[in-house]
This record gives sequence, structure tokens and C-alpha cells, in this order.
Amino acid sequence: MTTSTKINTGRFFEDFVLNEVIQHATPRTISEGDSALYIALTGSRNPLHCSVPFAQSLGYKTAPIDDMLAFHIAFGKTVPDISVNAVANLGYADVRFLQPVFVGDTLSTSSQVIGLKQNSNGKSGVVYVRSSSVNQRKERVLSWVRWVMVHKNDLNSPAPTTVIPELPNFVAPDNLKVPTYFTGKNFDATATGGRHYWEDYQAGERINHPAGMTINPADHTLATRLYQNNARLHFDDHLMATTQFKARLVYGGVVISLCRALSFEGLENAISILAINAGTHANPSFAGETIYTFTEVMDSWALPNRTDVGALRLRMVGIKNMRATEIENIKTETGYHANVVLDLDYTVLMPRKGNK
Amino acid sequence: MTTSTKINTGRFFEDFVLNEVIQHATPRTISEGDSALYIALTGSRNPLHCSVPFAQSLGYKTAPIDDMLAFHIAFGKTVPDISVNAVANLGYADVRFLQPVFVGDTLSTSSQVIGLKQNSNGKSGVVYVRSSSVNQRKERVLSWVRWVMVHKNDLNSPAPTTVIPELPNFVAPDNLKVPTYFTGKNFDATATGGRHYWEDYQAGERINHPAGMTINPADHTLATRLYQNNARLHFDDHLMATTQFKARLVYGGVVISLCRALSFEGLENAISILAINAGTHANPSFAGETIYTFTEVMDSWALPNRTDVGALRLRMVGIKNMRATEIENIKTETGYHANVVLDLDYTVLMPRKGNK
Amino acid sequence: MTTSTKINTGRFFEDFVLNEVIQHATPRTISEGDSALYIALTGSRNPLHCSVPFAQSLGYKTAPIDDMLAFHIAFGKTVPDISVNAVANLGYADVRFLQPVFVGDTLSTSSQVIGLKQNSNGKSGVVYVRSSSVNQRKERVLSWVRWVMVHKNDLNSPAPTTVIPELPNFVAPDNLKVPTYFTGKNFDATATGGRHYWEDYQAGERINHPAGMTINPADHTLATRLYQNNARLHFDDHLMATTQFKARLVYGGVVISLCRALSFEGLENAISILAINAGTHANPSFAGETIYTFTEVMDSWALPNRTDVGALRLRMVGIKNMRATEIENIKTETGYHANVVLDLDYTVLMPRKGNK
Repeated sequence: MTTSTKINTGRFFEDFVLNEVIQHATPRTISEGDSALYIALTGSRNPLHCSVPFAQSLGYKTAPIDDMLAFHIAFGKTVPDISVNAVANLGYADVRFLQPVFVGDTLSTSSQVIGLKQNSNGKSGVVYVRSSSVNQRKERVLSWVRWVMVHKNDLNSPAPTTVIPELPNFVAPDNLKVPTYFTGKNFDATATGGRHYWEDYQAGERINHPAGMTINPADHTLATRLYQNNARLHFDDHLMATTQFKARLVYGGVVISLCRALSFEGLENAISILAINAGTHANPSFAGETIYTFTEVMDSWALPNRTDVGALRLRMVGIKNMRATEIENIKTETGYHANVVLDLDYTVLMPRKGNK
Repeated sequence: MTTSTKINTGRFFEDFVLNEVIQHATPRTISEGDSALYIALTGSRNPLHCSVPFAQSLGYKTAPIDDMLAFHIAFGKTVPDISVNAVANLGYADVRFLQPVFVGDTLSTSSQVIGLKQNSNGKSGVVYVRSSSVNQRKERVLSWVRWVMVHKNDLNSPAPTTVIPELPNFVAPDNLKVPTYFTGKNFDATATGGRHYWEDYQAGERINHPAGMTINPADHTLATRLYQNNARLHFDDHLMATTQFKARLVYGGVVISLCRALSFEGLENAISILAINAGTHANPSFAGETIYTFTEVMDSWALPNRTDVGALRLRMVGIKNMRATEIENIKTETGYHANVVLDLDYTVLMPRKGNK
Repeated sequence: MTTSTKINTGRFFEDFVLNEVIQHATPRTISEGDSALYIALTGSRNPLHCSVPFAQSLGYKTAPIDDMLAFHIAFGKTVPDISVNAVANLGYADVRFLQPVFVGDTLSTSSQVIGLKQNSNGKSGVVYVRSSSVNQRKERVLSWVRWVMVHKNDLNSPAPTTVIPELPNFVAPDNLKVPTYFTGKNFDATATGGRHYWEDYQAGERINHPAGMTINPADHTLATRLYQNNARLHFDDHLMATTQFKARLVYGGVVISLCRALSFEGLENAISILAINAGTHANPSFAGETIYTFTEVMDSWALPNRTDVGALRLRMVGIKNMRATEIENIKTETGYHANVVLDLDYTVLMPRKGNK
């Protein structure tokens, strides 16, 4: 027997080249099974994604899949090329939901290296990529920037020129995409159970969502495998027992999806996600923990040429083993409160009262 | 930051008004994913729900979804309005399966308040509702009565006039619906593996089903989320640790579905469920417990104008951590045996020998 | 109450008759939900099964389901008739994947008894069956031999004439079926992320796949129920607590599927499974264990009349709680190393460089 050298160990920091475009593997056709699993994994009750007649009443040909399901599937493809040797996922920015995704669509993802900065210790560096996902008609459905800290393999390799991309603090209202065929005129709030519209939400308002969700080991691993995200630290307890974490880490996207589903109560009429402006996984999550969430309303925007719907910029905070009402400040002098797991700045589409 | 008042805390006892009709949120389009998940969650082997050719041999256009899957999805919608502040689910009656449900159908549920009785302690009361679920053509597919004990919020609110609805002990044979296109003439028992027909079952016969199923934490929470039933006590271990139960409760519908699947051996030819006559969740179930079941044949009815199929009234008893052969009497002097979790009186459709 | 005798206890050794054909119950229509669940349960990233455009680029009308998903569903039907009273599953041979299976196909399975040998202790015997599964057009899609040790019920029943079938050591290249419409000419390795082709693999090469997967209780029970395999030892902890195993056993097919998915890294271009030549579940697996795998290349075959693709005969070894690099010899003087759970000899289809 000879030992094979066919294992692709993935890119290390010195392997990333500025402006390089990486086409990721595993094109994925979305199925009805994905949507049903997403409901089973999150408990989502947003009727846009589970009721064809409701979706059609808003102008869609049929029910689009959940925005975060599309994101996680699109994102999962980047892992083997971008973050398999990552020390840490540092952040997201400028995440744009450009088109709805439907059952039958096939998503493919590519990433361009848009920034590089070697760390002063010479052992790792930060890689910035802009990833985008297209459907089978090559229409862009998602675009996002993330940055990760990646190990160097050859410590003697030279540091690249430092390039740090300029990133917007948030996706500007002009860049938020509502499908041209969308109409909020027939929005039926009995389908959501919600009583509050765009005009009802005010910057500075905090919504303490009451529900909590305990993460089972199978919940997060089923979800992460469904997304074909193969980062080993989510799956391999034998490996993780040798780390500081002692156990498998929950994929951060699982926490985002749980918080989005838990925040349904109080945000029932948040039709869809238009953008994620910034996101931080403040502390790791593990199976057995119970996730709660609260939302702060950050801003409220009219949308160009639309009187039926507006946009709300929200801050969704995920907390573990502590109810939303039990935490006031999520940051301490030294950083995030130890129970905070997510700090996500995002923008949703909301129907306006004017059309009722 | 100001604290939002947008959380809908749900109805308390004094909020229910006799005869009021409540339209529940979350219309739901049934998908192939729901059916596959139902098999994965229960191990159901009834060919009517997993074989299109078998379903077509009985006259269906395609395979209908499992009756209990339809029921749980229809039922889940009622939780935020009816039982979110419930102390206990007291019972079901007059549950009628009126039409088969197919992939692509969209179910919506509404409930009418048909009875109210304040408890003598003045702190809670019993609410009776008749719920019904319609498909996208507004055809009723399910109708049922349940009653729950609900907290009062304002203890000073006056007691309503007591109205207790009259409920049938069982759904009479004349009210059992078999689709007009249904035919049992081509019933192929090699598809079920069953050797026993309607005529073979006698009132007073007890079938001790041999199989047992251990409930994993993810099994019951995945199922309950799939049904979009958001009652918190099924999901939130952090909350439940502070209660007498110490842990998340298994949704009673999960137990019904497990018992139905476990009772396949000995009832292989029970084609579909026509009615649930009465049901009690005798004791709570928790993850880690193993469910067993036995069936008692209660009655046997010919069906109007049908010689191909008949109805059997059955009593399905769910037991935990004790095999069916190990328990004789499920009631003690003080109530149910502590290992009994379900006592369900229901009616199934069975092919008759006459047509073989 | 009278105790029913309607429970089918399944065949014991003396109930099997040479040459008898057994038609198994539970015909099964494959759905999109099955495929999505298979990805969620295994983390498979083979684009043939998750990308319609990729499948179409190889000549398929749409994406076929994973070969092992088809096998497990086909196999599950045999359990109630063949192995419900089995002491042990002794082995597989001559497993042929004859046709791709698509969503919408309905699989039915039958088995013929092809060998019988009573054990010298007179208490049990070995039963050999050739099973085959057909689709709704009665086309054979799968064929396999397995042999199991089954208890005798009546120890006084006479021993049958011993017949041991001749089984091939491996499925010969001439018997490997590639669909006539298949073409590897447009094989796009960016979809797999693989860089290695048929010519690159040499007999004697060992690939230590780096990823590991911890099995959660719900992972294996969800999978085994999806396959409608009702062998009780996978599901019933109350029963298993009384056995030498102390806990539910993981269905061997779950381990095969995990190893196949884990071996993707280094075998990205292994398009599909053509045959399983032999297979042994060397030791049992339990929830909580982490599975790793390595592959040895055993042989490399050109295929008749094909220059676009070739076949590789591989040995896939599954190991628990020990990485592939940590184990040299999987056999000790007394049998398999205690951490080895699977030893599978199988054949895959691989694109040839010649067409690139």
C-alpha cells in the first residue's frame, strides 16, 4: 500500500491571490424536501415559504424558499475552498438577497478574493472574499462578503500586499431588491397572524421575543449537512474532544435561522430578508443550549417607487440559556456578554398600512 | 430603547367568546418533503401513503398523505390562538377525516368556540372549540373538537355563562366518509403484508403489537416543528427545567403517530383513519422513553352502500417503558397506570374478504 | 379480551424453502423528500444526486437518487420476511446497480431462497437469498445476495438439504451496467471539485479520508425509519438494555452511507456505484461513535465499448473513534480490529482523462 496524495487539503493563507475567482463545487438543485426540512429544523411559520396561495397573492409564481435556506446552501459550497483551514469566521457584510429562489432552481457559487492582510505574528492572515450565487439561468440570486482568518502552511511564504476592501456599513435602500412582480396590495395578515405594519415600528424599539429553542445534537448536524457545509468542527466529536471547545460547534448559520424563526412573534409581517448588513457570531453555541432572541429596530426606510412595502433595518441578537428579558446590555467592557451568540444587523421587507 | 408591546400573548380564558370564529394563521402547502419526513419520523409502512401505484389501485389519483400528518399540520395552526396559555389539553372528540389530503394541497384552519366553563377556583376555565381545516378549494378535509383548560389573566373578569357542548361518544358509521372514487376491489395485500380482513377482527380482541420505539430528543422536536406547533413546552429545556416536568414534553400527537406506526404489525390492512372518537394523553412522555402499544377491537361496522370495505372501531393504548404484554389493566383505582401515555378510540377503514 | 394471534412473527429457519420466491410488502415511490433527507443524514456532496444540470450533462433525464439510498430502501423491505428473526447479518455479495432510480419511481422487492445450511448446533441455520428490486415498469434496478443466520423455532424440525450457492468474488466488468444514454464526454470536474481521474488511481493506493462524522441517536434512527427497515434492535432501547449490546445498534447501511460520504474527499469524481462485491459489518456501531474511513484501490478496469469512463474496484474500510491515519492493519490474529466497523469491496464509475 502507498499512501495517496489525492486529498485536497484546501487553501492556506498564502494560497489566496488577490482578485482570483474561485468556482466552488457542488451545484445544488433545490427541492421540496429542502423546504420541508427547513421547517422541521427551525419551526419557521412565515407563510411566504409554506403557502403557495399566499405567495401567489404577493405576485410570486409559487412559494420561494426561505431566504436563509438559500443563503446557507449557497454559503456551504464556499467552505471547502475558503474556510476549511480557517481559524475563525470574522464577519459578514453587504449580504444581498437579489432574487427569490424556487424549488427546481440550481444554485452555483463562486468567490472572488477582494482583500488580504497577513497578521503581525506571521502565522495567519485575513482573507476577504465576495461570493455570489447564481441560478441555472446565471442570474445572481445572492451576493455577500465575508472575511476569515486562515492559517499559513508555509510560514516562510512572503506576506502579500495588504488590501482591505471598503465595505458599506449597511446595504443602502437603493440597493435593496424587491421583485418587479411583487405586490403588497393584497397582503393578508390573517395568514401571518401579525397585526403590525411598517409604520408601526420605530427606531429604538426593542422586541423581546418570548420563545426559546433548545438545540439537539441532531438538529444542528442535520441542518449543516443539508447545507453541504463540511467544516469538520460541526460534525466530529472525536476531533473536538481534543480542542478547547470539547464538543462539536454549532454552525453559526443554524443560530441565525433559529433566531429568525424565534423572532416571528412580534415580527409576523416581516415578509422576507432583503439584506444582512453585518453579522458576528459573538460566542460559540453547542448542542444542549437554549437559544432566545430579541430584536432592536434600527431604522425604517421607504423604498423607491413603492407605496405598498417599506424596509426595516433590525438588529437581531441571539442569546443562550438566558431569556431576552433577562439581559440588558449585550456588551461588557471586554466584549460580548458570554451568553450572546449572535449580533446580526439585517433588513426586512414589511407591508405598509397605507395599502390596507 | 423602549420595550415593544408587539408580542401577542395569546388568548386567556376571559378572551374567548361563545360562537366566535377564529381564523388561524399559517396556511400550509403540503409537499413531498412532509411525507418523506413523516416516514423518517415514524417508520410508517402503510403503502397507501408511500406508493403511488398502490394508491391508484384503490382509486386515488395519487398517494394521499398520512391521515395523522394532515391532522398534526391542521392542528398545529390552532396552538397560538387556542392553547398557548393552556394549562392542559383535556381531550379530543368527533375528529372526522373528511377528504384525503394530497401533496400540493394547502390547508387552512379555523376554530369556533362552542363551549365555556369557568373553573370553581376562578383562576382558569375550560374552552371547547370545533376546529376545521379546508383545502385550497375550501373543501373541508378535517373537523374536530377539543377542549383545553386555559388560565385567566384578569381574575376579576366575570365568568361567562357555562355552555358545555354535547359531543358524540363516537363518530357514527353514517358520518364516516370514504371517497366516492375509492374502491377496495383491487386491494392487494402483498403490498401491506397483511393477511387479515375486516371480517377477521372481533370485538373484544386485543392485539399486543411487538415493536417499540425509543423517542430521541430530535425526533419529537423535528416532528413538532414540522407541524408548526409552537407550544413552548415541547422546545425549551431552559424553561422546562423550572417546571415540575424538568424537561421538554413530547407533543401528544407524536405519541399518536408512533403508536399508529407501531400498530402496523397486526393491523397491516387498516387502510386509513376515518375518525378519532375520543382521545386522552394519559401521562406525559419525554425523550428517552420507549413507546409500545396495544390495540383492542371495540366494534365492527359495515359501511352504507359498500361491500368492499368496512369500519373497525379500535382502542389504541400507548405505554412507555413497558411492553404491551406486560400490562393487563391500564387503569388503577386512582386513574391511569403511570406508564400509560395514550388512550385513543378511533375508527379505521378495512378491506372486506368478500371481495377477495 | 382475548389475545389476538394476528401478529406475524416472521419466518424462522425451518420456514425457508429452497427456491421459494417471497414478494415483500411496502412498495415505495421515491420522492424529493427522500433525496433531501439523504443529504441531511449523510452530508453527501456528489453532484450527480443534487444537481439536475450536472446529471443532464452526463445524459440522465434528471438527477438520479443516490445509489445507496435506493439500496437501503430496496433492502428495508426484505427485513420483515428475511431477517426479523436473524441472529446476524453475515454478508453481502454480487450487489448490482442495474438502473438509476429517479424521483417518482416506485420500487418493489422480492427475494428467492438460493441456499440453506443448518448449523451443527441444530438451533439455527444460514439462509441465502437473492433479492431484486424492480421499478414500476418491472425493470430490475437492483439485485443482490445476502446471507443471514436465523433462529429455528421448532428445534425438532428436520434439517434441510445443505445448498450453498456459488457466489462471485466480485461483479465482473462485463456485468457492470452503465446506462446506454450515459456520456462522460462533458464531465465537468468543477462540479465535483475533484482533480483525479480513472487513470490516476493505482491498485495498492490507500486514501486516508480526513473527515469524521459522529453518529447522533436521531441520525441513525431517522435514516433507518426512512428506509422502512423495521429491525427492532435499531429502535428499541428498552429491549436493547437487556442485551449484550446495552443500546440500540446502528443499521449497517447507515455506516456504509456515512463512509461513502466521508470518502468523497479524494474520490470526488467517483460518479456512481456500479456494484458491491462483498461486505462485512465487522463490529457493531452505536450512537455517539465517530466514523472515519479509508479507501484502498484494489483494481482498475476499462469498460466494454467505453472510452469516456472506467471502473475502479475499491475497498472502503469504516473505523470508529480512530482516524484513518491511526490504523495500519484492520485485522488482528483473532479477526477484525475492534474499531473496524465496515469492510466493503465495491466498484465505482470514474471519468477517464482521455476525454478531457
